Amino acid sequence: MERSIGIGLLGAGTVGGTLVSRLIGDADAIAAKTGLTFDVRKVGVRDLAKERPFPVTDGLLTDRLREVIDDPGVELVVELMGGLDPAGDLVLAALEAGKPVVSANKELIAARGPELIAAAERSGVPFLFEAAVGGGIPIIRPLSETLAGETIDRVIGIVNGTTNFILTEMSENATSYEAALEAATELGYAESDPTADVSGADAAAKAAILASLAFGTWVGVEDVFCEGIEAVSAADVAFAAEFGYAVKLLAVCERTDAGVSTRVHPAMVPLEHPLASIRGATNAIFIEGPAIESLLFAGPGAGGGPTATAVLGDMIDAARETLAGAQVAPRIRFSPGELVDFTEVFTEWYMRLVVDDKPGVLAKIAGGFGDAGVSIKSVWQEGVNTEATLIVVTHLATERSQREALRSLHAIDEVIEVGSVIRVLGDGP
Amino acid sequence: MERSIGIGLLGAGTVGGTLVSRLIGDADAIAAKTGLTFDVRKVGVRDLAKERPFPVTDGLLTDRLREVIDDPGVELVVELMGGLDPAGDLVLAALEAGKPVVSANKELIAARGPELIAAAERSGVPFLFEAAVGGGIPIIRPLSETLAGETIDRVIGIVNGTTNFILTEMSENATSYEAALEAATELGYAESDPTADVSGADAAAKAAILASLAFGTWVGVEDVFCEGIEAVSAADVAFAAEFGYAVKLLAVCERTDAGVSTRVHPAMVPLEHPLASIRGATNAIFIEGPAIESLLFAGPGAGGGPTATAVLGDMIDAARETLAGAQVAPRIRFSPGELVDFTEVFTEWYMRLVVDDKPGVLAKIAGGFGDAGVSIKSVWQEGVNTEATLIVVTHLATERSQREALRSLHAIDEVIEVGSVIRVLGDGP
Repeated sequence: MERSIGIGLLGAGTVGGTLVSRLIGDADAIAAKTGLTFDVRKVGVRDLAKERPFPVTDGLLTDRLREVIDDPGVELVVELMGGLDPAGDLVLAALEAGKPVVSANKELIAARGPELIAAAERSGVPFLFEAAVGGGIPIIRPLSETLAGETIDRVIGIVNGTTNFILTEMSENATSYEAALEAATELGYAESDPTADVSGADAAAKAAILASLAFGTWVGVEDVFCEGIEAVSAADVAFAAEFGYAVKLLAVCERTDAGVSTRVHPAMVPLEHPLASIRGATNAIFIEGPAIESLLFAGPGAGGGPTATAVLGDMIDAARETLAGAQVAPRIRFSPGELVDFTEVFTEWYMRLVVDDKPGVLAKIAGGFGDAGVSIKSVWQEGVNTEATLIVVTHLATERSQREALRSLHAIDEVIEVGSVIRVLGDGP
Repeated sequence: MERSIGIGLLGAGTVGGTLVSRLIGDADAIAAKTGLTFDVRKVGVRDLAKERPFPVTDGLLTDRLREVIDDPGVELVVELMGGLDPAGDLVLAALEAGKPVVSANKELIAARGPELIAAAERSGVPFLFEAAVGGGIPIIRPLSETLAGETIDRVIGIVNGTTNFILTEMSENATSYEAALEAATELGYAESDPTADVSGADAAAKAAILASLAFGTWVGVEDVFCEGIEAVSAADVAFAAEFGYAVKLLAVCERTDAGVSTRVHPAMVPLEHPLASIRGATNAIFIEGPAIESLLFAGPGAGGGPTATAVLGDMIDAARETLAGAQVAPRIRFSPGELVDFTEVFTEWYMRLVVDDKPGVLAKIAGGFGDAGVSIKSVWQEGVNTEATLIVVTHLATERSQREALRSLHAIDEVIEVGSVIRVLGDGP
């Protein structure tokens, strides 16, 4: 038996347009597989005049966004506008009105997740957001449902395709950061303003969501340490390869006895690690736990097609539960937990210095590290005199100690320049 | 608020024992994350006297298996016995009694899936089997829920850890099949009777389940073409590496306009394909679709810990729906669809021949292929005279044609031996 469900859509950009086209084009296949037909009743857009990739019937489009939620024919709201405002209040209003919501809005969920999840729970309706992280990669549902019984230790993700494309270009074609960014923009991977990508802000919102679901303790985007890839140089990428690493922008979510820490930064990833071989705009998420050991999920992290598939999966799931008429409990509950300040997190550092190679310089540098309580794992020198490049890789120490060691370098006359500092992906907690 | 749910367990071997220990040891963590506590009320076992890795309270164990289902305190049945009998009738009885069932039994689901899923639908209770394929890798839920809106073209899996361990050993340590099998047995990867693994039967049951969920058309295990790895030689594995391939036992589920085909056989996987680098006992599943392009899932495919995690995830999900008191619709519906006979499927073949290298032999061989309608992609010869090894790789042709070409070889006097035939993983439909 087929059941029809009325859809209200907020936003009809790339993903929204693809979604509506798929709902029409694949309607028979979806009905055969799920017993459901989706009837798009209202589409809220900012610009009524813009062309759409789907047939626009009378009364379908509205620029009074609230109408989408209030329409009595709308049983399920799909939010694909992005951004905090007005999306946040619209999603909240829909949930409070007892309408299930599917959203792809990572920024909104990272910022207002607990409030929206609580509203969904009060109304007993599903609030699903598979597309918010990893685009077409199923990760939210596996993490919050399939792995609900696992005590996850660590989640490491390449969750921003633009930066992974740039770093792959720099590595494979030995291009500069600027040239790689230009290539990413030309190919449509990077926006005209790529700040959210290259600064790590996009990845930080996703990291907050992954950490929250993995550990059951809410991590807000303000709790995520965030460093972008703007300072990564072609020299670092080349040195990384020489030392057996690939440079990747990682989201690292970790739980130790001290608590949960979440961070986004460029990292030296050992070449034998599965994440090292994730190329171009592909995303990947690596999950570690005592029973599952490690799991890898990889696929397209963005784009209209993959994202629409993730949204559609959520719509089918939400419709199934909603039509059953049940008051469903949320898929995951959050408990208060300790968040560890990043300065207390143990990290390993790679540092590239330019030094004046006089006798005793290495002793001075080593002394600074020793005083800060950081022990050096390896040192490698290239060149001589004032052009000597020194690569220092440290052992695990707290960020606080590593930063103190770094400060001590600036006090040494022979250290001409601290070229860069990149953390190394270690074996974890 | 915490809700308690009474569990009846059928089978307490490796997975069952691990599961009960986890339910006790991780009870607080599970309750915090899900709001659920699991109370194991009855455990059905064959041998009451056997030692268990969990505290056995009075009346917990029974060897009258039906008691587990009939116990009024049992709200959810977990079947971890394996095999068709008596597991099948017990699962059916539980579903008919309106009790949700979680099972890890690939053999049972491949053999009686439609019947059991129909019984679950009649009773409006969940019947979940995430652990049946890929052990700890979340694959059943992603395939049947997250990707329900995708028109999947192909699923390719390394779904048997024992055979992947053996093939990895043969490749990395240049050992014979027999020596690698012995190593697998010593390390506990292979059973004392490894027939189900090396014959491909275990992978065939999993392939049937994957194909059914991916395409929404039920594929029984009897519909799966199945060839094991017993005939793969060290020479083939070495030649594969030389030609840029890794030999893997693959489950290939494909949908074309002609219909669905499902098969298990050793395959030459191009080294640049993500499945080529899956080593040891790891499992991996690669999914192709028009919108998602390709997704890779990799992780531990067997073992008590990973499998218990998958079972626990299903239990949490089933409990959540059951406690909501809803009559839930099944997650996927199956429609009748065309199944393509394997002889009509297009494949590419690698063949290793030993020939007497006389003038004209290649022309005779090529003639046989041509008559069968198979065109040759590449030929490579090593050695001379009666010891010459000829490697032939064909272009895509139907299995029927490839087999006809193979038969023609036997009629050529100079062909001393057809050493082996391995299909090549191509670009798909």
